[in-house]
Amino acid sequence: MSSKYQSLKEECYEANMQLDALDLVIYTFGNVSAVDRKEGVFAIKPSGVPYAELKPEDIVILDFDNNVIEGTMRPSSDTKTHAYLYKNWENIGGIAHTHATYSVAWAQSQLDIPIFGTTHADHLTADIPCAPPMKDELIAGNYEYNTGIQILDCFKEKGLSYEEVQMILIGNHGPFTWGPTAAKAVYNSKVLEEVGRMAYLTLQINPKAPRLKDSLIKKHYERKHGKNAYYGQN
Amino acid sequence: MSSKYQSLKEECYEANMQLDALDLVIYTFGNVSAVDRKEGVFAIKPSGVPYAELKPEDIVILDFDNNVIEGTMRPSSDTKTHAYLYKNWENIGGIAHTHATYSVAWAQSQLDIPIFGTTHADHLTADIPCAPPMKDELIAGNYEYNTGIQILDCFKEKGLSYEEVQMILIGNHGPFTWGPTAAKAVYNSKVLEEVGRMAYLTLQINPKAPRLKDSLIKKHYERKHGKNAYYGQN
Amino acid sequence: MSSKYQSLKEECYEANMQLDALDLVIYTFGNVSAVDRKEGVFAIKPSGVPYAELKPEDIVILDFDNNVIEGTMRPSSDTKTHAYLYKNWENIGGIAHTHATYSVAWAQSQLDIPIFGTTHADHLTADIPCAPPMKDELIAGNYEYNTGIQILDCFKEKGLSYEEVQMILIGNHGPFTWGPTAAKAVYNSKVLEEVGRMAYLTLQINPKAPRLKDSLIKKHYERKHGKNAYYGQN
Amino acid sequence: MSSKYQSLKEECYEANMQLDALDLVIYTFGNVSAVDRKEGVFAIKPSGVPYAELKPEDIVILDFDNNVIEGTMRPSSDTKTHAYLYKNWENIGGIAHTHATYSVAWAQSQLDIPIFGTTHADHLTADIPCAPPMKDELIAGNYEYNTGIQILDCFKEKGLSYEEVQMILIGNHGPFTWGPTAAKAVYNSKVLEEVGRMAYLTLQINPKAPRLKDSLIKKHYERKHGKNAYYGQN
Repeated sequence: MSSKYQSLKEECYEANMQLDALDLVIYTFGNVSAVDRKEGVFAIKPSGVPYAELKPEDIVILDFDNNVIEGTMRPSSDTKTHAYLYKNWENIGGIAHTHATYSVAWAQSQLDIPIFGTTHADHLTADIPCAPPMKDELIAGNYEYNTGIQILDCFKEKGLSYEEVQMILIGNHGPFTWGPTAAKAVYNSKVLEEVGRMAYLTLQINPKAPRLKDSLIKKHYERKHGKNAYYGQN
Repeated sequence: MSSKYQSLKEECYEANMQLDALDLVIYTFGNVSAVDRKEGVFAIKPSGVPYAELKPEDIVILDFDNNVIEGTMRPSSDTKTHAYLYKNWENIGGIAHTHATYSVAWAQSQLDIPIFGTTHADHLTADIPCAPPMKDELIAGNYEYNTGIQILDCFKEKGLSYEEVQMILIGNHGPFTWGPTAAKAVYNSKVLEEVGRMAYLTLQINPKAPRLKDSLIKKHYERKHGKNAYYGQN
Repeated sequence: MSSKYQSLKEECYEANMQLDALDLVIYTFGNVSAVDRKEGVFAIKPSGVPYAELKPEDIVILDFDNNVIEGTMRPSSDTKTHAYLYKNWENIGGIAHTHATYSVAWAQSQLDIPIFGTTHADHLTADIPCAPPMKDELIAGNYEYNTGIQILDCFKEKGLSYEEVQMILIGNHGPFTWGPTAAKAVYNSKVLEEVGRMAYLTLQINPKAPRLKDSLIKKHYERKHGKNAYYGQN
Repeated sequence: MSSKYQSLKEECYEANMQLDALDLVIYTFGNVSAVDRKEGVFAIKPSGVPYAELKPEDIVILDFDNNVIEGTMRPSSDTKTHAYLYKNWENIGGIAHTHATYSVAWAQSQLDIPIFGTTHADHLTADIPCAPPMKDELIAGNYEYNTGIQILDCFKEKGLSYEEVQMILIGNHGPFTWGPTAAKAVYNSKVLEEVGRMAYLTLQINPKAPRLKDSLIKKHYERKHGKNAYYGQN
């Protein structure tokens, strides 16, 4: 009766419910997945199910080639993007996608979010990348799979590391974020939304606001993530 | 004792209460109706009643010529607009009207909401239309009935389908939305408010933000509403 | 033991608590009063008391010359403004003062809030007036009393009726609103805040947004407040 | 078993929980400390602990030279800034640091917050200062200690009194606030956030909005803080 993926489903379920609790989604506008690397599968939200109705047993289990391993519901329409990222980025444990307001506004603006302050530098040292819209033939084709390619291409072109920069904006669409766990992927969605809101306000107050200087970027990132980090309890 | 319109009243009541729960109204600034096509009647909120005091039995039942069929309270001041839409658009099951903040701001700006992203394209392929204010003699005349005409004229002029585009802004006033059910009409009010907010922020960040390209509009609309839609559970 | 002003105190207390419930104040940044015309007294919030600690018995009773009739606490620092308005405007029953965000932003901008839409016209037909800052000698003098004069001067200069226009912005300070009851004064504070927010957004979206045309102003105001009003239940 | 610093820890704990309740922080983005002048120690939040998990016994006690006196957890990464301020400003009893949205936006803009209205003047008579980013060698060095120096240098250069002006923005970082108690420091964080939001909106509505005139600054500050203050209950 009980599934061998029970704890994976519950991790995925809890992370999806966090999206809602953190005001990152309305209705069904988002999805989170969690991976089990040993089993080579990931768990993802079923498509179009409101958060208020979602149950752990609704979560769908797939392999990295998008074959459904367990579950009777149709998985998220964005499933192929998740699968592509899990297949190519071996150190990520969870992925989140939302239509959060400020993140989408920046994506619709087709602009990277400039690094203006230490809230940003506490999490990453680069501007938050916005991938340009993909070519028409790719959109008409295997769209969600190609979105995965679009993300990797953008990281390659900008020379970014997915282990440091755990977020991207898909131009005209919205954010994808990831991390070592599904919970951390959701955390990164919230941080991105807040950093995007702060950057928006900064430019409204001072359109000539300067980018954060390198010494402060380095100091804040290092004190939280460097070899001699002294933020947090270990 | 019990009304033959009991379930219609309850559908209408629940949808009105959702307006409030979704932060789309303050005080009495909105109304929702639900139709019973077989009986040729619709149910609508009574005028000026706060949501906290509203009860299912307060809901008023009218025919499409605005005759009260059941109920002792005065129906919403916008009732004639609802009746006109039900009479002319035979496939709609519910209508919502709000004074939600971003929707009203766009209406007051007398501008269509440009389609900037996939959140918008997930719901409709056109800019969200803003009907120009009507002529003075129509305002002074049968105003709410003429608002219905104003809506149909705007759709005719722009060549829009009410089955695809389930929302409009009345210039200087606010939004009307509709759908197959009253609940879906309210859903469309919430989507319009959020899409309007995203579009506002997009233009603040990048006044030259480009309209979403056709291939992406088509892809997102089709994957949710097209013949081979693969969003949701059926 | 019980006060002859018990019900007046409770009306005042309830209206003050509404300010907080409607998110119009933080901390102690606001006050509401209620009048008893027969007794020639009004009830007002004590100065500097947080809403969470406020009790009906804390409410202070004063006459229109600012003599304390009942109560042991110091009344609101804005009491003389309230007294002046009650003395001069015989048909008002309650007054509210807040530092609500959008209302204050307009006051700090020293601009009237233009009438851009029907949400505004449902309540008044004029732009919401912003009184210019008073002269230095009046500020240094009997400041709160002079604020009352400032309000009446502004209405006189602009030819406004306090029975129609139940709100004003004091330049660089914030809003005062009033109405037939204390509850209605608070209602007007909320409407002002929302109308101010909508007008702000309208100008951000379209800096050339036109003022609402006269025919629509008249229609919406009259259908709610005119001789043949048909909004509400009577 | 019980600590001699129990009440200090509880004061510190309560003030930290207020940061969260007042929507001034997300996740672990903030910290509050409280001082015991007689003992020459202060209590501060441990680093990186979510508010939902924080307990009074987690609070760390240090002296003004950053030696841990009691507690097993690592103190906030900003601890040296707190210690420096306690050591140099002998009349402060508590300090708060947040990444609240509007405060950070102003800090990232590297602009002082102009005094536009009486909400501001009720609390201080100067523009809210924004300290310029420190030199690269100071950032690379004893960063958090140097942040303390940066704050005092800014106050010295601008001729400000820390007893009147109980807040500062660190350019590109965020706000520090203080006061006679930890609770008052948190209050000042909330006031700063709200005043910053009002100033932002004011400039959006009217980019030429004038600074509040001196007579009004003086009047409002004096009626609340002057010798003959008449705001509040004593």
